[in-house]
Amino acid sequence: MKTKRLVILGSTGSIGKQTLDVVRSMRERFDVLGLAAGRNETLLAEQAREFKPRLVWSEDEHSRTTLETAAGKSARWTPLEEQAAHPDADLVVVGTVGRAGLEPTLAALRAGKSVVLANKEVLVMAGAIVMRAAKAGKGTLLPVDSEHSAIWQCLWGEKHSSIARVILTASGGAFRDYTRDQLERVTPDEALNHPTWQMGRKITIDSATLLNKGFEAIETRWLFDVPLERIEVVLHRESIVHSLVEFVDGCVKAQLGEPDMRVPIRIALSYPERVPSRSMQPFDLARIGELHFGTPDFRRFPALSLALKAGRSGGTYPAALAAADEVAVAHFLAGHLRFTDIPVLLEEVLSAHRSSPDTDIEAILEADTWARAQAEDWIQAKV
Amino acid sequence: MKTKRLVILGSTGSIGKQTLDVVRSMRERFDVLGLAAGRNETLLAEQAREFKPRLVWSEDEHSRTTLETAAGKSARWTPLEEQAAHPDADLVVVGTVGRAGLEPTLAALRAGKSVVLANKEVLVMAGAIVMRAAKAGKGTLLPVDSEHSAIWQCLWGEKHSSIARVILTASGGAFRDYTRDQLERVTPDEALNHPTWQMGRKITIDSATLLNKGFEAIETRWLFDVPLERIEVVLHRESIVHSLVEFVDGCVKAQLGEPDMRVPIRIALSYPERVPSRSMQPFDLARIGELHFGTPDFRRFPALSLALKAGRSGGTYPAALAAADEVAVAHFLAGHLRFTDIPVLLEEVLSAHRSSPDTDIEAILEADTWARAQAEDWIQAKV
Repeated sequence: MKTKRLVILGSTGSIGKQTLDVVRSMRERFDVLGLAAGRNETLLAEQAREFKPRLVWSEDEHSRTTLETAAGKSARWTPLEEQAAHPDADLVVVGTVGRAGLEPTLAALRAGKSVVLANKEVLVMAGAIVMRAAKAGKGTLLPVDSEHSAIWQCLWGEKHSSIARVILTASGGAFRDYTRDQLERVTPDEALNHPTWQMGRKITIDSATLLNKGFEAIETRWLFDVPLERIEVVLHRESIVHSLVEFVDGCVKAQLGEPDMRVPIRIALSYPERVPSRSMQPFDLARIGELHFGTPDFRRFPALSLALKAGRSGGTYPAALAAADEVAVAHFLAGHLRFTDIPVLLEEVLSAHRSSPDTDIEAILEADTWARAQAEDWIQAKV
Repeated sequence: MKTKRLVILGSTGSIGKQTLDVVRSMRERFDVLGLAAGRNETLLAEQAREFKPRLVWSEDEHSRTTLETAAGKSARWTPLEEQAAHPDADLVVVGTVGRAGLEPTLAALRAGKSVVLANKEVLVMAGAIVMRAAKAGKGTLLPVDSEHSAIWQCLWGEKHSSIARVILTASGGAFRDYTRDQLERVTPDEALNHPTWQMGRKITIDSATLLNKGFEAIETRWLFDVPLERIEVVLHRESIVHSLVEFVDGCVKAQLGEPDMRVPIRIALSYPERVPSRSMQPFDLARIGELHFGTPDFRRFPALSLALKAGRSGGTYPAALAAADEVAVAHFLAGHLRFTDIPVLLEEVLSAHRSSPDTDIEAILEADTWARAQAEDWIQAKV
């Protein structure tokens, strides 16, 4: 098998670290060509020493010498977009958070790369643009969220016209059983304690508000070309059934497994092969014993409805929502906002937003900037 | 789409009737070329009047004129094997019970037909021969049992080398919660009352003893070329998850749906298309609410172990087991045997059996005849 040359953007984040874990478990198959990250230079330097990438970059220009030295003689300081479109790259993992992933994703797709897209805001903000870039450059998007990986795998060997519905499962997040009153008093630490998944901070909070599930519905809409009206969200507290596809003849397929992000990362990296995992325990349904399913409570978790509504409205609404949410989550984690303020803020920003008739990248970025400012203003007024 | 020409062997049985239901729901896609059945001539004549097949046959030669008249002018009396291999047949549904399906299945496969095989004894008795016939004649086996249909669908778009394990689900049958003492006193009527599936009498009793699940494991071994050591049986009382496949990378795929045999029949008939079903209710996981899984109790249901053991031993053991079981079930239904006598009888016959080193059709049929005689003798001695 040909060695795949990997670029990992956001290598010190949750997805980046787990991607490198997976690479360690099948080193003979991968060559780490590029590593880039935000502010965690210590870890990035360690990774550079271990994997000796030819391309390195960090948000902080001061770390340049350290990183180039760690990576070795031939290493070059190469910004995100250049790494993403590098002629030697086969596979680009976009593990950055928020808007930072947009341009590198577009650059990689336009250059015909396979892109493992863990940064969900990219598709939420700019799904139409991303899918156009993939089409134009013959790039491929490989899903890595457990839900989208599940849908993807269920669709192998199936025709698009056979899809009746997609059923996204939701663990319900940290507060699935909380009353409205309890939700008002939750702390950032409590919100960061996800019941089933180990993930980054931003996405863990988005899981607790259920906004994340609405984002995933929007991603599903773009990744698999299924309208939001045919995407359903079902609560499933055990996070064992990662999502399902219902076909027109009444058959339903699902992908299951213990919640472990390395499994979908592994399949995205090794696709179209399935590579044996040595560390894997056999899946033990009898031990799991019970699986539960239910309907999400849209009243206690209004962010889910907001996301679905923004998705259906289209235009720049999802971009405005994603931008406002980045601000809201940062302020919640900093202790400036209550948990229940997050959806209130999101709703305010969305209802004040007027979507641009264009959905080109300028319109998207303008909506993004506008929504961030609106969200900051709202918080200032409140504090 | 080209009309498919169907031959249905065993058209008055449970699978035959449901196959005709499915055909009624998409009449424009099918032309019923042949119908054949055992003793229910009244129903067979009705079916012949409705579908006007060119080929008819029944076990009772006396019904010939009635059936030919019902089917119409051009109808011809044509035995099972000739129907199965008829040059105009595209798809042969083998819905007969027990040994009767063996020769027609082989004839159809040698003639390069697609065979929808509902008669599980065929693969249990003579899996190696059937698979050789399929290979030689370029015939195809399409599974129609809900479990095998599930495994088949999970394997679309997958490589054989990616399969780690197959997990067969078992409802547990009519008596899954009975104690050993209770099992001794159950009546045929109680045994025929399956909790989730509407099926024929023989298979319903085999479900109650769990022998059926052992047979399905043997079928799985042949249909998908997976050794019995990598086939696991898991109890699942709701019969919603029809079976699962675990892949080498730790991903598991499952096929789900409400228990309704028409769904797997539909996909087998329409493959490789998925044809929309108008009568279908959307799959409602939230309403289903809970799914349970557990380990089968091999002590209360020893027939399951016997079947797995016979499958692992190979040779003519599975044929002897299947033959003895046909006799045992008939006598249980006639009130001559207790439910708990069935596995005792099966074990006696199996341990007295000496497998032929050959597994050609003569050896299989000899083992079949021998095992029937042994079983009858055992019952005579007991009564």
